[in-house]
Amino acid sequence: MSNSEPKRTELGQLGEFGLIDHLTSRLKLRNTSSVVGVGDDAAVIDNGKSLTVVSTDLLIEGIHFDLSYTPLKHLGYKSVVVNVSDIYAMNARPQQITMSLGISNRFSVEALEEFYAGVEAACNFYGVDLVGGDTSSSNRGLIISVTAIGQGQADKLTYRNKAKVGDLICITGNLGAAYLGLQILEREKQLYMANPDIQPDLEGQDYLIGRQLKPEARKDAVEAFAKVGLVPTAMIDISDGLSSEIFHICHQSGVGAFIEESGVPIHPDAEMQAIKFNLDPITCALSGGEDYELLFTVDPSELEKVKYLPDIYIAGEITPASDGIKLHTKGGNIHDIKAQGWQHLSK
Amino acid sequence: MSNSEPKRTELGQLGEFGLIDHLTSRLKLRNTSSVVGVGDDAAVIDNGKSLTVVSTDLLIEGIHFDLSYTPLKHLGYKSVVVNVSDIYAMNARPQQITMSLGISNRFSVEALEEFYAGVEAACNFYGVDLVGGDTSSSNRGLIISVTAIGQGQADKLTYRNKAKVGDLICITGNLGAAYLGLQILEREKQLYMANPDIQPDLEGQDYLIGRQLKPEARKDAVEAFAKVGLVPTAMIDISDGLSSEIFHICHQSGVGAFIEESGVPIHPDAEMQAIKFNLDPITCALSGGEDYELLFTVDPSELEKVKYLPDIYIAGEITPASDGIKLHTKGGNIHDIKAQGWQHLSK
Repeated sequence: MSNSEPKRTELGQLGEFGLIDHLTSRLKLRNTSSVVGVGDDAAVIDNGKSLTVVSTDLLIEGIHFDLSYTPLKHLGYKSVVVNVSDIYAMNARPQQITMSLGISNRFSVEALEEFYAGVEAACNFYGVDLVGGDTSSSNRGLIISVTAIGQGQADKLTYRNKAKVGDLICITGNLGAAYLGLQILEREKQLYMANPDIQPDLEGQDYLIGRQLKPEARKDAVEAFAKVGLVPTAMIDISDGLSSEIFHICHQSGVGAFIEESGVPIHPDAEMQAIKFNLDPITCALSGGEDYELLFTVDPSELEKVKYLPDIYIAGEITPASDGIKLHTKGGNIHDIKAQGWQHLSK
Repeated sequence: MSNSEPKRTELGQLGEFGLIDHLTSRLKLRNTSSVVGVGDDAAVIDNGKSLTVVSTDLLIEGIHFDLSYTPLKHLGYKSVVVNVSDIYAMNARPQQITMSLGISNRFSVEALEEFYAGVEAACNFYGVDLVGGDTSSSNRGLIISVTAIGQGQADKLTYRNKAKVGDLICITGNLGAAYLGLQILEREKQLYMANPDIQPDLEGQDYLIGRQLKPEARKDAVEAFAKVGLVPTAMIDISDGLSSEIFHICHQSGVGAFIEESGVPIHPDAEMQAIKFNLDPITCALSGGEDYELLFTVDPSELEKVKYLPDIYIAGEITPASDGIKLHTKGGNIHDIKAQGWQHLSK
């Protein structure tokens, strides 16, 4: 190879988080209205009175969803949920979404009506308006791009970079179930492909499959925070698994974390199914993803408020950066927690 | 076929505009901050002080661009331009963009750096900040989703539905060149595929190819409007060709239009190239698309202001709806103008 050959660095060498940082680090914010740019759940724009919070997600068939076991109505619903979840993770309220679709001619108008019925149901539940979008052809599969827009107040917004040593680490609900639901659906798909006469065995799996196909964003938790006057010091939604999310908070806040395995909530169905799949339940919670619960930190003086809220789990404590990010297992061992999205686990 | 067979309506039966209307017509706006939803160049959100204008576009490899003749840097630049153009078409100023990419592993980090160099150049030129986004894998090709966010004032925003009978129809610059640039690139690609030893013959075609690969949004025109105190009655950017855009304005304003062929600006290079391709130059202007000029209407009392602006062409007049949408040709004939995007032409 000659020296004039252009350099080629594979995407995998940087990883997803490294790639975004690498590509956007040169870009500087110039408008005074741009309060927060790349690097949190959502961008923050100051419009003079309140703050506008903007989040965007791209969902690609074959990468983010599989239509062989995902009803289109559920997919429409989930497309809205994953975006409003990012707005709630800023402690803001979603108000509008835009939705762009790339559609191959494999889809009929009726199929898209189903999809939009799910979008409409989610818009109704979360109180958001669909205000714009773009529809175009796709040469293969379905592509969904959603941007959610919300409003928040300067003294209430929660970022990833404000966790402090001594803060309690809290989670709004159980983890790992959505990942196990996905594993069940994938198993049944493989069996079906091997023998199309086989009936899917989904008996008693409603909870896990529901967590995968029809997740909810934690609107109720953010509303409850407002009711008791709680403002977390940092917050993020758990889309990639607890380990990735605690890593983001620690990395951006310049702190460490000590997580108690016994404090990480896991649903009994998830626990049982993990064992059936020969997986450690805590691994599913740490690396499973797509639960869309909120991970947040609070000053220990707020403990009474946290206890007052239903369905909040205290999973650990923020420590100095030099202590690293650790898991204290039920067996009494202490392990390093590494950031890894669920995509790595599922390979 | 039994009666219980689910109904299947092909997407082509509704067409792009019909499809969006059909799918979104059931959705009602509920938040008072949602001023304008689906159906204009951008959504309008009232944040109490100024208005936030939001526009989104999805660009898919193989549908919207061909990387065999589109440099990645140009593509990054154009991805920003097509979105800020929608904000200018509202007579607002773009301030932020979010950009999500779906990337197959065919791309290297260096290739994405090229793309982002174009994004950065456009952000610099248009004074916008890249504030967020999402990067994920794609199973095939490159997918680009951009959302642009701008600010405007309630009494200055220009919609599609406020053109009135007697208004002058104006265009900010020449049309058809981008389409002809695309035809040249497509021709050279076909020749190259038939015989890879052939050198592309792009001599003297810089202008047309530049209009296709590196279009600009008409920031300068919107700034000039503000300088002379002109607020168009209606405005839209010309992304799908003059015929589609005048159709949108007429349809939403409940009016007709009378366009003079002699008033539609066409660049001499475009005129010459159209003839070489055996195409009628006015057809390229009407149906060509991707010129990103602005089409706007003004009250006739504003004629002096329009004349004062450089590079503005008066192409006709708004008429009653009952008169239809007509073209008065140079030959003295009067034809109906039909709405058709450039994709139909290029088939």
